[in-house]
Order: sequence, then structure tokens, then C-alpha cells
Amino acid sequence: MCSLPVPREPLRRVAVTGGTHGNEMSGVYLAQHWLQSPAELQRLSFSTVPVLANPAATAACRRYVDHDLNRTFTSSFLNSRPTPDDPYEVTRARELNQLLGPKASGRAFDFVLDLHNTTANMGTCLIAKSSHEVFAMHLCHHLQLQYPELSCQVFLYQRPGEESYNLDSVAKNGLALELGPQPQGVLRADIFSRMRTLVATVLDFIELFNQGTAFPAFEMEAYRPVGVVDFPRTDAGNLAGTVHPQLQPWTAQPESGLEKGPCTPQSLHLTFGDQESSSSGKTTTSGRGRRAIEDARTVLPRDHSLCEHLRAELRC
Amino acid sequence: MCSLPVPREPLRRVAVTGGTHGNEMSGVYLAQHWLQSPAELQRLSFSTVPVLANPAATAACRRYVDHDLNRTFTSSFLNSRPTPDDPYEVTRARELNQLLGPKASGRAFDFVLDLHNTTANMGTCLIAKSSHEVFAMHLCHHLQLQYPELSCQVFLYQRPGEESYNLDSVAKNGLALELGPQPQGVLRADIFSRMRTLVATVLDFIELFNQGTAFPAFEMEAYRPVGVVDFPRTDAGNLAGTVHPQLQPWTAQPESGLEKGPCTPQSLHLTFGDQESSSSGKTTTSGRGRRAIEDARTVLPRDHSLCEHLRAELRC
Repeated sequence: MCSLPVPREPLRRVAVTGGTHGNEMSGVYLAQHWLQSPAELQRLSFSTVPVLANPAATAACRRYVDHDLNRTFTSSFLNSRPTPDDPYEVTRARELNQLLGPKASGRAFDFVLDLHNTTANMGTCLIAKSSHEVFAMHLCHHLQLQYPELSCQVFLYQRPGEESYNLDSVAKNGLALELGPQPQGVLRADIFSRMRTLVATVLDFIELFNQGTAFPAFEMEAYRPVGVVDFPRTDAGNLAGTVHPQLQPWTAQPESGLEKGPCTPQSLHLTFGDQESSSSGKTTTSGRGRRAIEDARTVLPRDHSLCEHLRAELRC
Repeated sequence: MCSLPVPREPLRRVAVTGGTHGNEMSGVYLAQHWLQSPAELQRLSFSTVPVLANPAATAACRRYVDHDLNRTFTSSFLNSRPTPDDPYEVTRARELNQLLGPKASGRAFDFVLDLHNTTANMGTCLIAKSSHEVFAMHLCHHLQLQYPELSCQVFLYQRPGEESYNLDSVAKNGLALELGPQPQGVLRADIFSRMRTLVATVLDFIELFNQGTAFPAFEMEAYRPVGVVDFPRTDAGNLAGTVHPQLQPWTAQPESGLEKGPCTPQSLHLTFGDQESSSSGKTTTSGRGRRAIEDARTVLPRDHSLCEHLRAELRC
């Protein structure tokens, strides 16, 4: 990754958004707290606005009301003519685009940090558009250096030829923090605290950048999506199986460093028919299956992308 | 616990209910599977009916639509005159009471097994009414003997002078299986498999009982509720804090056996104000707090009872 050029225009207008999905509680509670008590967001060289992105979904403690807000920031949704029948989130996305954008314009916010939780055991995941986003890449590297014990993993979401559709793409620079595992609707003290600390460090980084700090070049490993595998389904579209138990500990545990997952079973999925238990009541599970019974630590993502562990040579 | 008397009337009519809470997925998917393919429920000496208890909540992937179904089986709800404005679950509870009860009558089912998941790290919890339920107590003991690696914990829910309100209380004998942690709306392969195995073993036990097997007396440890502690709240009723991170690993891990939780902090809760992070971005957390950051295993219950680890001398 190239050195972050200095001098470069300071970032002046920053926003932190929570409750983009109304049941991801770290961001919901942080946004609500900051809307009452914004002092901890203050820095000398720029202003930070807290935003509760999806108030209706938050009130209902749902991911969304009509349409996933974090899939709604495409030009098609943002620029089409409003109608009375528009889904709630389409209207809301246009409001947020007016507040934080307009997307791809000179008036857009300099930086938006979007806060998410996942039921998957993703630990601390930093989600940026691509390796070409130099500011975001340096910010991710800074977080990794500040918190080596968290093993922050970087995920680059942009696919070739695909338009961005997520909230933080309306700003000139953006990053999403994805912390898990946390059930929807549940607030975990440690994850809440970790999210709050990471936000503070992001703001500290922006302050350092604005003050003219030099950030040297570095190499970084990153993940990118290579495909999506749906669950096996019935004709009616219901689930006909689960992620295979051997694949359930999906990502590395922080204390063991970055590593590949467990050995790959022949199939990604275990259908309900495969799981027939014997009439004696004891399942015929392998050693690894039994460890799956004892290991209550990890959770399934509801939909999961296949991620490629990409050693991205980002040195200029 | 007294020996289970032999002979005693065999159990003939048994039901297994899933989806009492529509977003607790092990029971939802098991019930739906058995409604298509009931063969694995069959035993020689009795019939077992699978029931999807709350279809509307299941369809919406919500805990309930209007009112928690598992709080609706009191005589007040069941026996009052129906009106068009009745909450969905009140109507549904009356239907289930006709199907599986009537509660406290001679026509009620012999046994109902109700399947639940929790976001709390409860492992495998067996929930019965009281130590006076001899059949249920022997069933619990049998499950503990069959699966020592699961460290099945017994929870006795009945409080003095309080009427039962849960689904399995409509039958002559009842038990609930509560498996976690699992996020609502998420289906974990290992927990699904464990639930399925436990159901099979419950049915095997009933078969053994019906065949005249003798079950000797035993001693068992059990938990019972001693109180409820709400979260700190704002005037508007919103959360003003979380369960203290030191209390987050709420129950023992299966492999370490039954033990008390970690040392008790001065307060059960950590308010959002206590969690202010310093402007340097590093939180001033204790060693135990840092371990809370690294330990992503446990989850918070949304509301939690204070449980007393009760060494119940159940020997006659």
C-alpha cells in the first residue's frame, strides 16, 4: 500500500452511523448514546455527526422494515422519482443521501463509518470497498497495529463491474466495522465496548492524518468475496439443510492468528436427511462432530460468502 | 428422588412442540421436518404428534406476534370468553389447549416436550416444573446419564403460589429443552443435531418406562429462580447499560463441570457512562475486561433470572 500522501486535504465532515440494520445493537445503542452525549466524538480538526440510520427498523428491533437499507444506495434507488408507494428504506436512503452525500458528488461527507454486528464468528472485521481506497486501507492498517490482539481482518467488498449499494459508499471515503458473533437484538457488553473503542481510534486516526502525520507503506492481507453459496432449499424455498458442522468454526479465533478453517468436508452442507439419529438416541458423529456439540462458541451466518484469503501485495 | 413406581400407567399420547417461539430455529425446523417425515418419532408403545406451536410467529421469524405464547397458558387466558380482538397467541393457546389438554383434565396428553433455543450460553438446560414431578425428574436424570459430556442442567421453574403459564404445563407431564447459545433466526447444525438426539432419547425413555423398566432413586442438583434483575433503564424505558462483562460467561462450560461463575463484581451492570473510552482510544479495562474482548464465546440473555445453585436432596 502506498504511503498516504502528505499534505492532502484534511477531512472535515465525518459521520458515524449506527442502526443501519435495526437489530444490530452495538451501533444502535452507540448512536442513541451519542445523540444524547456527543462529547466523546469531538476532535480538534473536524466535526463528527452521529446518525441513527434506520429509525423505524430500530424501533421494531428488525433488520429492516421493507428493504435492506444497506442494499439501497445505488443510483437506481437514489435517483428515481419518489412515489407514495416507495419502500420505507428507499425513502430513507434518499434522505441519508441528502444528508451524507449526494453520492459521488463534491458535497459528500469526507468519511462515513458504519457500525454493524453479525451472528457469524467474524471477530473484528473491517469492510472497505477496495485496495484502491488508500485512506481506508491506511486506516485499517492503523487499527490492526493498535489492536493486535483483535486480529482485525480486512474484507474488500467491491466486485468487478458491480455498483456499490451500501451506506458508507455515499461518502468520499468509507469503512464499515462488522463485529460478531452477537445475536440480533442482543447487546453484549464486550462487543459494545470494543466497537466504542474502535470508533474512538478511527477518529483519532483522522485527527492524526489532519495534523499531517506520515503513514509509511505496508503490506496487508485481505479477503474478498469469490462467490455465494445458498443453503439447500425445498421447492417452497425453505431450508433443507444447514452449514456442515465441520465448517461451523468459520474464521480463526483471535488468539490463534489468521489461519485457514478446518479441513473441508466433501459437502458444504448437511441436509436434514443426513442427520437422522439412530433409534438408540446416540448420533453417529465423528470426533469432530462431537467437538461441535461441545463447542458452543461459533454461530452460523445466515448467508455466507465464500471468502478467498488473498495475500494482497499492496506495496507501491 | 423416589424410585419411579412400576407398574404405573404407560404413557400413550405424547407431543413434541417446536416453534413455540417462532425464531428459535431448532424446534421450528424439527417440527416442520417431522410434519413431513414423522417416522423417527415412532415407538412401539405410544404415539407422538409433532406440533408447530406458533405458525404465525414462525412465518414472520419472530418470537411472537402479539403476546408471548409461552406465557399464555394460564386459566385466565384459556378459559375467558373469546372475542374478535383477542391477541393471536391467546386464540392459539386455546387451540393448543384443546389439542393437547385441556389443562388439568383427565383428557390431557400424557407428555409434552417443548423445544426452545436461547441466546444465553445455557448449554443444554432441562426445564421442568418442580421436583415433585417424579416422571420428569427421572427423565432428566436419564438424559444426564446418557450424555455426561453435555452437562445437562436442570431448572425448576415453579415459584410458590404462581400458576404455570407455559405450553408444556397443559399436559399431565411436561419438559422443555432449552439449548443455547444460538441467535434467534439462526440454525446451528450442532445445536439442531443435539436437539434431535435429545428428543429421540426422551422418546426412548418413555418406551423403556412403558415396557416396565425400573429406575432407581438418585440425587440431583437443580437450579431454581430466586429473582429477576432488570437492566438499568432510562426514563423512557430504554436500556441504560448492559450486563457487566465480568458476569458475561454466565454458566459453566461443559468440559469444566458445574461451577460457580467468575467473581462477582460490585454491580451486576455496567452503565454506558462507565464505559467511556479515553481519548487515546485505549479503554482502561482490567485484565478481566480484556479477556472479555478476546472471549467471543458467550452471549447475553435478554432478560435473566438469578438462579440459585440448589443442591436438592431428592432422595425418598
